[in-house]
Order: sequence, then C-alpha cells, then structure tokens
Amino acid sequence: MSDLQALPEKTVERLSEYRRTLLRCQKQGITHIFSHVLAGMHGLTAVQVRRDLMLIGFSSDTKKGYDVSVLADFISDILDAPQPMNIGVIGMGHLGQAITKYFNGKGLNLKIVAAFDVDKEKVGTVIDDIPCYSMDSLAERVEELDINIVILSCPTRVAEEVVLPVVNAGIKGVLNFTSKPLNFPLGIIVENYDITTLLEKVAYFVKEQERGDDI
Amino acid sequence: MSDLQALPEKTVERLSEYRRTLLRCQKQGITHIFSHVLAGMHGLTAVQVRRDLMLIGFSSDTKKGYDVSVLADFISDILDAPQPMNIGVIGMGHLGQAITKYFNGKGLNLKIVAAFDVDKEKVGTVIDDIPCYSMDSLAERVEELDINIVILSCPTRVAEEVVLPVVNAGIKGVLNFTSKPLNFPLGIIVENYDITTLLEKVAYFVKEQERGDDI
Repeated sequence: MSDLQALPEKTVERLSEYRRTLLRCQKQGITHIFSHVLAGMHGLTAVQVRRDLMLIGFSSDTKKGYDVSVLADFISDILDAPQPMNIGVIGMGHLGQAITKYFNGKGLNLKIVAAFDVDKEKVGTVIDDIPCYSMDSLAERVEELDINIVILSCPTRVAEEVVLPVVNAGIKGVLNFTSKPLNFPLGIIVENYDITTLLEKVAYFVKEQERGDDI
Repeated sequence: MSDLQALPEKTVERLSEYRRTLLRCQKQGITHIFSHVLAGMHGLTAVQVRRDLMLIGFSSDTKKGYDVSVLADFISDILDAPQPMNIGVIGMGHLGQAITKYFNGKGLNLKIVAAFDVDKEKVGTVIDDIPCYSMDSLAERVEELDINIVILSCPTRVAEEVVLPVVNAGIKGVLNFTSKPLNFPLGIIVENYDITTLLEKVAYFVKEQERGDDI
C-alpha cells in the first residue's frame, strides 16, 4: 500500500475503531459481518463504512458480509508499523499510571516501555512493570529503547517545560493529555487530548438540548 | 443568546480551549490579547479564531486586542449552564480516580459529586472526597444529587451492561472512556473518548511521516 497518500484523520480513527470491534467479534467466534451491522455498532451509516474501506482498497464478496479476520488483518496492515512502536509516558502520576495499566497487556502494536518523572521517589522504581527513569535521562533512554512516541501525563503547569526535551530527544509523535495545547515544530505529530474540553462539550450539548426541550 | 442555534461541535471544543487559555492569561495579569496571538497558542489561524467569535456574536475594539476577562466571561455565558452541572463517575478504578483527581478543585462549572462501582470494598467509602455508591443505587442517587452527566470509566468488558441503567436513571450526557463505542437512544449526548484510537492515530501518522522521509 506504499503508493497511498496518508489517510484523513477521521478515517484513521474509524479504522482503529472498526479493528477493535472486529477483534472482539473474532473472539466471540463471529466470522462474517455486514457493513450495516459494523456501521450500526459505531453509530455510523453503512455508506460511511464502505467509503472508508474503499479508501484503503479493501473489497470483498458482500453476499456474506466482510470476513472478520481478513478485514482485521487488512486494517492492521494499513495502520500498524511493521515493528511495534515503543512509547514513553512522561509524568507517572495518577493519570500516567491509569494509562499504563490500561495499555498493558492489550496486545496492541504499541508498547509502553518506559516512564519518566521528576519525582525522586518514583525514579529508579518499577511501576506496573514499567521502569521509571529521571526526566534528565530522556534523550538517552529514547535512543536506547527506540521510543518514537510519548504520552504527556504530567501536570499542566509544567507541560511547556517538557516540549524542548521531547523535541531534542527526537520524539516523532506526542499524545498530550495536559490541558495546555502545545506547539511542537512541524514534523512532530501532536494530538491534544484534553478531558476538560470533551466534558465541557458534552455539558454544552446537554444544556442546549434541555433548552430546546423547554421551548 | 437563547435565539442562537446550537454551535458546531468543533467550535464548542475550540471555545472551551480559548477559555482555558484566557483564564491562564488572566492569572498572569495579561489584560488584552490579539486574535493572532490567541490563535498561535492553539495552532490555529487568526481567521479561525475571529470566525468562532463572530459565530457567538462577540465583537470588540480590535486595536488593543480582545479584553481577556470580557471574552472569558462571554464564552462562559455561551458554554455554561446557569447552574453548575453535576457529574457521576461510573467505575472508580485507576482511570476513574485519575479523572476525579484531575477535576477536583479545577473550579469548573462541572462538578463530580458521586462515584459508582460494583466493588464492595469501594462502595460506602469516600475516595478523593467523592462518595462511592453501589451501581444498584444509580437511579436513586442521580435523582437525589441532580446528576446530569456520567463519565464511564468502567472496564470495557462491562461497558454495555451499564447502558440500560444509565438510560433508566435519566442521564442526559455520557463521556465514554471505555474502548467500546456505545449506542444510546437519541436525546442522550454521547462522546466516545477512546485513548487507544488516539494513540493508534498518532502512531499511524508517525509511521506515514517516516515512510515519506524515506522516499
């Protein structure tokens, strides 16, 4: 598939979600799934699902629906790098530990291999099977452990101080959980993932809906 | 502003982010901010910021830039309900606790007032100042405590079992942290917020970028 352009962000998100659903179906012994069933499980239309799969060049005999294993593997070939990608967690507080626990043993192509913190009580220990290193050793460990991506779960007030060390360490992708949107140089993929924003969004639409009900 | 239509989702997300930036500026004693500065802090264009503010009907003398406090208050009037909204956390494991710690004391218009779990060791205790109740008492507590929104931070494998109790309790909005997309009846606002999806998305674009660099 190396002649394809990078896919749109939303398509990538949906493919990741389809794959997880397909893997769950596989576990339940389901071998085939129709596009409208897969769509329904994600609150989408069948047209949307078919369009996404067309975009990645997947076609199938649609009489029986999609072959669950074949489609899951096809999506994996598109999404995953040939080797698992190594991930570092910056900030091993409650959120960092929750994320680590959440990912450990999920069998993804993504692997948390190290944590970094400034807290002297954490540095040098192993938390949830993940060794915790000093922030000062970030560049060194990133090279040694071949880390491509970092998850920022440090307190928001120190988020900006982390940008330069991350850039200097040669990190390629950042998943930012702090509530500060961060500017990284072009060429570093950044996903700002702020819980407050999403909760405020839900609250806004709940409020609007109630307002609508009152009219 | 009651004659306005509900705003687009992305605009609501950005308004939430602008407000947080404005409140931080306020704390630092910054009284005015130009649209291009606010834009730059969010990796956006000034045109985008001005368009968003036009959409909510905000106008200002642009010679000195926006008045930070006035704009923050204006956005609050748009986003926030007149009274704080009460939130329940379903699943008080590591993620639930991390989210609760993250929100406590943030001074938002959103307030986590209760947690729910099936774990007998947690039920009846107070975790991070939040009382933890039995899932069986959800409907009762939702009414008593006037809870509008729930955060689902239970294990993914039980996510579907939670849907019906949440619907029956009269919840209006759901922020779903499990990796299972959930279908709720129309009229309930759902935001699926899956960490795996976002991390796989970052990984995909890192991979694509490296592939591009190799060519």
